[in-house]
Amino acid sequence: MNSPKLIDPRLELILAARHFYQQGWMVGTAGNLSVRLPDDSFWITASGRSKGELELGDFVRIYADGTVEKPSPDVKPSAQTVIHQALYTLFPEARSCYHVHSVEANLVSRFVQGDTLPLPPFEMLKGLGIWQENPDCAMSIFANHSQVSCIADEIKERFTTIPPQLSALLNRDHGVTIWAPSAKTARNYIELVEYIFRYMVAARGTGFCRAGEERE
Amino acid sequence: MNSPKLIDPRLELILAARHFYQQGWMVGTAGNLSVRLPDDSFWITASGRSKGELELGDFVRIYADGTVEKPSPDVKPSAQTVIHQALYTLFPEARSCYHVHSVEANLVSRFVQGDTLPLPPFEMLKGLGIWQENPDCAMSIFANHSQVSCIADEIKERFTTIPPQLSALLNRDHGVTIWAPSAKTARNYIELVEYIFRYMVAARGTGFCRAGEERE
Amino acid sequence: MNSPKLIDPRLELILAARHFYQQGWMVGTAGNLSVRLPDDSFWITASGRSKGELELGDFVRIYADGTVEKPSPDVKPSAQTVIHQALYTLFPEARSCYHVHSVEANLVSRFVQGDTLPLPPFEMLKGLGIWQENPDCAMSIFANHSQVSCIADEIKERFTTIPPQLSALLNRDHGVTIWAPSAKTARNYIELVEYIFRYMVAARGTGFCRAGEERE
Amino acid sequence: MNSPKLIDPRLELILAARHFYQQGWMVGTAGNLSVRLPDDSFWITASGRSKGELELGDFVRIYADGTVEKPSPDVKPSAQTVIHQALYTLFPEARSCYHVHSVEANLVSRFVQGDTLPLPPFEMLKGLGIWQENPDCAMSIFANHSQVSCIADEIKERFTTIPPQLSALLNRDHGVTIWAPSAKTARNYIELVEYIFRYMVAARGTGFCRAGEERE
Repeated sequence: MNSPKLIDPRLELILAARHFYQQGWMVGTAGNLSVRLPDDSFWITASGRSKGELELGDFVRIYADGTVEKPSPDVKPSAQTVIHQALYTLFPEARSCYHVHSVEANLVSRFVQGDTLPLPPFEMLKGLGIWQENPDCAMSIFANHSQVSCIADEIKERFTTIPPQLSALLNRDHGVTIWAPSAKTARNYIELVEYIFRYMVAARGTGFCRAGEERE
Repeated sequence: MNSPKLIDPRLELILAARHFYQQGWMVGTAGNLSVRLPDDSFWITASGRSKGELELGDFVRIYADGTVEKPSPDVKPSAQTVIHQALYTLFPEARSCYHVHSVEANLVSRFVQGDTLPLPPFEMLKGLGIWQENPDCAMSIFANHSQVSCIADEIKERFTTIPPQLSALLNRDHGVTIWAPSAKTARNYIELVEYIFRYMVAARGTGFCRAGEERE
Repeated sequence: MNSPKLIDPRLELILAARHFYQQGWMVGTAGNLSVRLPDDSFWITASGRSKGELELGDFVRIYADGTVEKPSPDVKPSAQTVIHQALYTLFPEARSCYHVHSVEANLVSRFVQGDTLPLPPFEMLKGLGIWQENPDCAMSIFANHSQVSCIADEIKERFTTIPPQLSALLNRDHGVTIWAPSAKTARNYIELVEYIFRYMVAARGTGFCRAGEERE
Repeated sequence: MNSPKLIDPRLELILAARHFYQQGWMVGTAGNLSVRLPDDSFWITASGRSKGELELGDFVRIYADGTVEKPSPDVKPSAQTVIHQALYTLFPEARSCYHVHSVEANLVSRFVQGDTLPLPPFEMLKGLGIWQENPDCAMSIFANHSQVSCIADEIKERFTTIPPQLSALLNRDHGVTIWAPSAKTARNYIELVEYIFRYMVAARGTGFCRAGEERE
């Protein structure tokens, strides 16, 4: 009924951030969310804001060339902006990009030494676009360099060579990032990957073997 | 006071879905709920909807012969509709059928290799119609075939041969389904089985032996 | 300011039940709460009601002699009413009695074989009236007989012989019951004992030894 | 827009306490929060109040010399007031001080025998002012003497000798205390340290070694 142009795309992010905050995935100002606009600029959460109570003024607009709209010392774009940019460049269909920090995401990033995390073969992965029966699926893990541009470079390099199976990646010890065709879908993706991480942590806590060995 | 006919039966499902979503049992659009009407048709949640914010338009009506009311590409019935149909056929007293996905339900479905899961002997099982002292009770587990009609067929075959002890079944790696004489009771059943699954997971996490061996 | 007589004492119970329900301690209609009136009658939750949405009509008034006010097939007193009566008789200062079912309460009741559960030596126990440093404190456990009057008899017998250290007792596999000088205090007591149970379960899950051995 | 002087600084504490209560970190009246005013007096929560529903009257004002504004038997300052005073004296930049009790804080205080707890090397520690890559950071632990002034003395003595790496300390078996340049920041600090404790407990529950050994 309403023209979608009339609804500010930041509203969906404000609601998602509040929900993630309540889940304990965006504590102490952690995490960042963005949504891409038709002109390929994107809104991203400003650095240092409490994610449970974002307002429209807590976002920064970044243009396709990387310039910041109305730069201000008070409203600085998230430190992870270059990762969002890298993902939007790599995946033209991506219109939204969410990064959250759960305890479980940090833990599972330690379940393996290497740079991919095998996932349990859940039908639920269809929500992330994996439609096989008993899917054999893994999520990419990247080291969490303190220089964020190095992370972005590694993502671009690896994903250009080997396209990811899922629209999701892990930073070791630093949470998950997903990209999706809409902000609404992005929220579903986060919920799904966090569900899988919770399962993996609980499975290990009850004495089941590592995720990669759970397959029948 | 109010005639029950005047209250839309989908409202109870909308409230239940919101509660289950908040518990983390219906993440990323997962799960499906239905309620049967006096004419034996039933309302079931449409596929792909966020369960935390269902509206009346997010349901599809299925007639007793399996036909869909006003079929539409936008509002498709849940993929699990045939399981709801099978249960309504098997159990004429069932007026509502709920399917949710918790981490714990997935985990406990792995606690045993076979097709039944022994439950701890809780008095609480009286809420599911089990009134013995120290009840010796098990829940049926079914493989989660990607072709949902195969699951429905196996349910019909097994339950026709051996009636289930409980109004509940597990799909391995894919959550629990319950059926109940009303939508309100269905919510209680879900809460009870999920409580039992949480207990079983926590018991194993603290080093207690498998559920089937916990009996005194 | 307001005369306390003007505030219906059931309101405090309705709010407490909603909170406990949200914590997962009163799932599927489980649990029961009561508050004693100046004439020594008490209001207790009716059997089979959803504890997340109690109303004033979901309570039954029980007189000191055990008779039920306006008996009705629709509003039956909780099956555990005789336990509340036993506790009000034993402890004249008790004005409120709450019984809830958490996963953790059920688990810790299995941590010991005997009929007392040693608690960790938390300063927090002062909230339950234990003021020593490093308190050496245990909670009574009673078997959960299906005939509730047997439980009530055992409580009366044991507590008459050996007064309990705490205003709390466990039914094995069936939750905790506390009694307190007011409904407001009763809520605090439940929160405190459930906190201690959560700690004990988590301690065991992380490989610490049994509660009774944790003392320095 | 609004002059900050017009907003009562207790409001931020009321909201924080409600949030912490909902997380299970301030159960049964546990915990205490304070905020320092320009004249170096501070508001602190009164003893024995339910932290989920604080009101403006549930605070006591303490002057820099330790005197209580309008002393009253009904509204007594928190027993931990001397710890807040000690921290405000030690750290002139601290304007707010929060103390909460989580299950996880109590557990991690037992992970080590000594008086410092090594933390995992999370980037998230930057939210607590630690900006190194793979930070090697530890939190001070103090024994929880029943005489609170002894704890305060030990804090003053140790922190005067060895300044703490973080604006946070643990009381063994009795929760975490943080101090921060504002009430808003204090809430972020609590969220961050509790996140880290949750991680440490979950890591141990899944069989990972102790926090101090997790470093790469």
